[in-house]
Amino acid sequence: MEHKAEIISVGTELLLGNIVNTDAADVAAALSELGINTYYHTVVGDNPERLKAAVEIAKSRADIIITTGGLGPTYDDLTKQTLAEAFGKKLIFHPDEADKIRGYFEKMGRSMTDNNLQQAELPEGCTILDNSCGTAPGCAFEAEGCHVLMLPGPPRELRAMLRGAAMPYLQKLSGQQLYSKNIRIFGMGESAVEDKLRDYMNSLTNPTLAPYALTGEVRLRVTAKAESEAEADEMMAPVIEKVYEAVGDYIYGVDVDSLESAVFALLKERGLTMACAESCTGGLIAKRITDLPGSSAVFRGGVVSYATEVKADVLGVPKDILDEHGAVSEPTARAMAEGARKLMKTDIAVSTTGVAGPDKDERGNEVGTVYIAVATEGETVCRKLHCGNDRERVRTVAAHNAFDMIRRLLSK
Amino acid sequence: MEHKAEIISVGTELLLGNIVNTDAADVAAALSELGINTYYHTVVGDNPERLKAAVEIAKSRADIIITTGGLGPTYDDLTKQTLAEAFGKKLIFHPDEADKIRGYFEKMGRSMTDNNLQQAELPEGCTILDNSCGTAPGCAFEAEGCHVLMLPGPPRELRAMLRGAAMPYLQKLSGQQLYSKNIRIFGMGESAVEDKLRDYMNSLTNPTLAPYALTGEVRLRVTAKAESEAEADEMMAPVIEKVYEAVGDYIYGVDVDSLESAVFALLKERGLTMACAESCTGGLIAKRITDLPGSSAVFRGGVVSYATEVKADVLGVPKDILDEHGAVSEPTARAMAEGARKLMKTDIAVSTTGVAGPDKDERGNEVGTVYIAVATEGETVCRKLHCGNDRERVRTVAAHNAFDMIRRLLSK
Repeated sequence: MEHKAEIISVGTELLLGNIVNTDAADVAAALSELGINTYYHTVVGDNPERLKAAVEIAKSRADIIITTGGLGPTYDDLTKQTLAEAFGKKLIFHPDEADKIRGYFEKMGRSMTDNNLQQAELPEGCTILDNSCGTAPGCAFEAEGCHVLMLPGPPRELRAMLRGAAMPYLQKLSGQQLYSKNIRIFGMGESAVEDKLRDYMNSLTNPTLAPYALTGEVRLRVTAKAESEAEADEMMAPVIEKVYEAVGDYIYGVDVDSLESAVFALLKERGLTMACAESCTGGLIAKRITDLPGSSAVFRGGVVSYATEVKADVLGVPKDILDEHGAVSEPTARAMAEGARKLMKTDIAVSTTGVAGPDKDERGNEVGTVYIAVATEGETVCRKLHCGNDRERVRTVAAHNAFDMIRRLLSK
Repeated sequence: MEHKAEIISVGTELLLGNIVNTDAADVAAALSELGINTYYHTVVGDNPERLKAAVEIAKSRADIIITTGGLGPTYDDLTKQTLAEAFGKKLIFHPDEADKIRGYFEKMGRSMTDNNLQQAELPEGCTILDNSCGTAPGCAFEAEGCHVLMLPGPPRELRAMLRGAAMPYLQKLSGQQLYSKNIRIFGMGESAVEDKLRDYMNSLTNPTLAPYALTGEVRLRVTAKAESEAEADEMMAPVIEKVYEAVGDYIYGVDVDSLESAVFALLKERGLTMACAESCTGGLIAKRITDLPGSSAVFRGGVVSYATEVKADVLGVPKDILDEHGAVSEPTARAMAEGARKLMKTDIAVSTTGVAGPDKDERGNEVGTVYIAVATEGETVCRKLHCGNDRERVRTVAAHNAFDMIRRLLSK
């Protein structure tokens, strides 16, 4: 049976835009992995009438309803009460769950306020979904031909419960499976990619191929409906090959998480180490590589040389280069990368220097002008960029390019 | 007249959880600033039938419909066609808009593919909303008692159009205004904050006071409906005072964006400079402070000393401290901060060293153990933390604490 799922996220803070709805994205990605179609997400505030109305609409167009949020201890956490009511169920107090909540507070060394115990009230006859990272248990039940799952709002708790309890529950409902692979592309715009592949994309039905634009990158997603992963892999292989033929030089990986993951894997494979010297990116390159567990095997360290004096004193950029060419220049970028490589004793070092904005620098370089250099044993290469005029974008695109340059160097 | 708004975000990549819906949050925050009530957000894929069904539901419960996404040049961008049809309007080709699109490509030095020109087709009689960051214009029209606004999907384009064109358009529809202030709290959990303030929160109607939990922090939002900002400020002042009485020590600011913004403002006010020496946070502290425009006035630089050798060689942590106490220890944290302060010639330096995970360190320190030190002229202080066992959380919470320690020091 083909299921239709709908995600209802509950919370006034979502509705008013105080926080971004990462929960819906996480649940949707999980459903898509399981081959369950999602047709709508709805966001509604902490308001029982409007939540109930949203549930009624969802009932009419879906047979799996997954809620996120509103399971906590505060007075505006009303999801369980409202959903139980919408499906004619009572809430029952679960002493075992109450004990778990008390135990959680003890373990954290915090005193528990009484309102926390209302989290132990759950719809009659439900399956309890364990919360490994917090106090609010989730639950699942079937009623009126509909499967209802309620998951907590805090993203960390949601993710743990999704993987640990909700996906195994949903797996049983879903017969068929969707498999997908993501081809990651850097250095080519979405419409240019689509222009090269439009006819081919339109000709496909299973697998399908679709482009998604991210900041400065494009992702092509290949999706196959199949009985097994092996069968799906076989179906997807010729599609991936075709994409490599069309835009191969720009592909930095298939099913890799990010440019930095691709760089990490290449460095590890080759037994090489890296360092960085960052001016305009201000620590973003170091932050991105150290986001990855295990990165200490390849990343030794970096210098954020925001002040010009730090470029000279710590990285050893010669004063006459700084005087003659300025901090934002190719010679400075090269000297920064070479200095970081020596200081950190690594095989490779990458540097960035540029104008992130909001204003031009004192030498009149425009916002978005960035030099990136990569130093290796015998050679230093440099790339000059114009990354637009938005501070966040300049920094993100500069860091993307830094990783792209290392990747291209290591892929040679 | 009290308007009711609904946000419809269009895009299969949103529906499948490939990307997170920041657009809806941005639009919702803008509506809330304008005092327009938002009751629902809906997400629907690039599917004209289901989009049309979502529009019909929105028509029945809202009189302002704002769509995001689906205005681009690719074959699955169907928002304008579908909305025009749902409201019985034709699409008209606008030569002026086509010229702007051609001009945009010229300016970027890229060649334009023909599919880009379909972006110049807009519903008859609409107001065109200018796109200052991209090619797809937005539009607004009124039909069947409903105001419809269509905004682009790419977050940068959306934000620019929202501020530049959509909000001025909506401002005319909204008579009354909502004003709000956010009280930012660090170091106290949401339920502890609510426990102290529950009765008071429940007693309020205008202004209102509501708590929101973020990673490691709590935000209390005060919201007043008023005729003018001055009147709202006067209404909110006693509420803010009451919150200060209850949890004052944990408040790091009102209407400041983040802990790092609070630190930036304090440093600037006092004419002080800072540096950092990061191990487990791996550049995150530097990245966060340099996210802020103008941060070069207070931030001189940092060292990411991921490898132990870098702690010794670059920051000058004595070898015997590293040998005796290990890299993750209070003496190392202190020596790192003092070393960074000397190296970068700043008034203040902060350091972090800890176990971000996934594994314990070689001395058996648990994941989540972090030491943070702040060095100033005469004194170095240190805080030991247990930040849980999730890598991202450990890093985020450690960076939060680093900024909190500097803030408390400067607020004395």
